[in-house]
Amino acid sequence: MITENQYFDGNVKSLGYETIEGKSTVGVINPGEYEFGTANKEIMHVVEGELIVLLKGETDWQIIKAGSSFEVPSSSSFKVKADVQTAYLCQYR
Amino acid sequence: MITENQYFDGNVKSLGYETIEGKSTVGVINPGEYEFGTANKEIMHVVEGELIVLLKGETDWQIIKAGSSFEVPSSSSFKVKADVQTAYLCQYR
Repeated sequence: MITENQYFDGNVKSLGYETIEGKSTVGVINPGEYEFGTANKEIMHVVEGELIVLLKGETDWQIIKAGSSFEVPSSSSFKVKADVQTAYLCQYR
Repeated sequence: MITENQYFDGNVKSLGYETIEGKSTVGVINPGEYEFGTANKEIMHVVEGELIVLLKGETDWQIIKAGSSFEVPSSSSFKVKADVQTAYLCQYR
């Protein structure tokens, strides 16, 4: 089954599916700034577009271009900014 | 806006968005075999999983692994098989 998820009034939407390594989602983030909490560790890949990310406990925002990724520990959080509609892959591992 | 699309009774779902180069979608394909027609040229990237593709006019199916892509001319069609839930990026250019 392909699950459908929405956050922040539809400014972030994702589709959930299963892989042999665990759950994943692909989604789209609208321009704006958002904060996400994590239960599992999350490996976030930018598929198209660009994200600017601030991991919990860090002071510097990181620019994550298409083809790059970042990791968020379990039971943590991260802030993310987008200037353009950005597609991402999130792997819950 | 992030548009939501479904095909083949929900076995293929995608999210549509805009980039400066044109429209794109990210989506998920369930295990099965499907045929898609194209209006624009489409550049299909496998983000996670694997697709087996037969382009119109060709006789050999191609295996497209995660990180690889294939192109479908405008006003054409292609057959695609998936053995596992597979995430893709489609760029309409």
